[in-house]
Amino acid sequence: MTYCVGLKTQHGLVFMSDTRTNAGVDNISTFRKMHCWQEPDDRVLVLLSAGNLATTQAVVSLLDERTKAPDERTPSMLETPSMYQAARLVGDTVKEVIRQSAPAGQSADAFGASFILGGQIRGMEPRLFLIYPEGNFIEVSADTPFFQIGETKYGKPILVRAFDTAMKLEETVKLLLVSFDSTLKSNLSVGLPLDLLFYENDTFRIGYEKRIEADDPYLREISEGWSDALKTAFKSLPDFTR
Amino acid sequence: MTYCVGLKTQHGLVFMSDTRTNAGVDNISTFRKMHCWQEPDDRVLVLLSAGNLATTQAVVSLLDERTKAPDERTPSMLETPSMYQAARLVGDTVKEVIRQSAPAGQSADAFGASFILGGQIRGMEPRLFLIYPEGNFIEVSADTPFFQIGETKYGKPILVRAFDTAMKLEETVKLLLVSFDSTLKSNLSVGLPLDLLFYENDTFRIGYEKRIEADDPYLREISEGWSDALKTAFKSLPDFTR
Repeated sequence: MTYCVGLKTQHGLVFMSDTRTNAGVDNISTFRKMHCWQEPDDRVLVLLSAGNLATTQAVVSLLDERTKAPDERTPSMLETPSMYQAARLVGDTVKEVIRQSAPAGQSADAFGASFILGGQIRGMEPRLFLIYPEGNFIEVSADTPFFQIGETKYGKPILVRAFDTAMKLEETVKLLLVSFDSTLKSNLSVGLPLDLLFYENDTFRIGYEKRIEADDPYLREISEGWSDALKTAFKSLPDFTR
Repeated sequence: MTYCVGLKTQHGLVFMSDTRTNAGVDNISTFRKMHCWQEPDDRVLVLLSAGNLATTQAVVSLLDERTKAPDERTPSMLETPSMYQAARLVGDTVKEVIRQSAPAGQSADAFGASFILGGQIRGMEPRLFLIYPEGNFIEVSADTPFFQIGETKYGKPILVRAFDTAMKLEETVKLLLVSFDSTLKSNLSVGLPLDLLFYENDTFRIGYEKRIEADDPYLREISEGWSDALKTAFKSLPDFTR
């Protein structure tokens, strides 16, 4: 499994992803699920991936090759005229990879993968998309200003209750770590380290990037502090009376 | 879907279940998922059910008929010599119903159902079991003193972090309502009203039973209070620093 979140705030975009991949609980590995393309002062694109690892790696490799080989740069993540076109490019690449992987006449479900794509291209607004295994996609709205992929359930209640698009980027990291910590404690197939990335609106370069390891002091502070804060919050509510 | 929880504390057993059943989001109904057998001063048995409604109803009806028709009382929920035998009886009945439902040679997955069975029989300790669709079962332990069935993920983190077997029964109701509220907010297929039941150790009768409707003042107080308490808890943690 996997857990990845992309948030859109008034200040920018925030991405977090875990790094565990598994084929059964006895076969786990660490792979980066956050991929980034940037052309400083022109664009930043960040892609988070969940699902079949062969599919997600193939999609990223194809997108990457297209950004690297000058002759084959069209279509390219570094040249799409808009974020919408970049989302279409990812969607088309996913469909192509899944079609090639699935044996003729068989279900492609096992090869499925989903993606969160966010970023900004000069002259346009920052945008955040969720791309389905079928290659189609949706965009965040004011009502739902975040996307999750992978093991989304354990970490969702805190996002729904506490996320606010006016949050500072530093506060969103705290929120994401609480959400990831609940997920890490409940599903073994989501694992440390975590990758974190901020993009601040209209900067057209990655604002901040960090790999958060198991011994990260801030992660420990949040994980332990949240258990205590939750207990205090719980005690503050009135008990049931018969 | 469904959400049901059974907790074992030092003081007794606490059960809560939702009442929504659905076959698609456009076909929902309300059914009680909490069933109870008691023989005052001898035994109390409580059964929570999740899964295929035809299967769970058939299981409860069969168990019920056996408790009602004197000639067919063996085996019966009111006569099993131990909680372990009662769990076996439920497990055997589940297997029987699923075997009869599934067409020959086809998978029985669609007819699956799982159950939480708890109670106490005079002369023995209170016990709490989780019964699988295959008919086998497990019992709570000191390490895991609760069971969930149905849509378990959204409401699990708070149970894992805040449940303590020393809690008073009144406090466990608060905990269960927080867990159910998170689930109700996230999955439409779990719905109000909720059924609540306490059993206090060594009383051999139902201690307290209540149906909690959408307009219940305590439910509202917990639901609104928890959102605020969570936000306060979240604000009490330090922000991330770059």
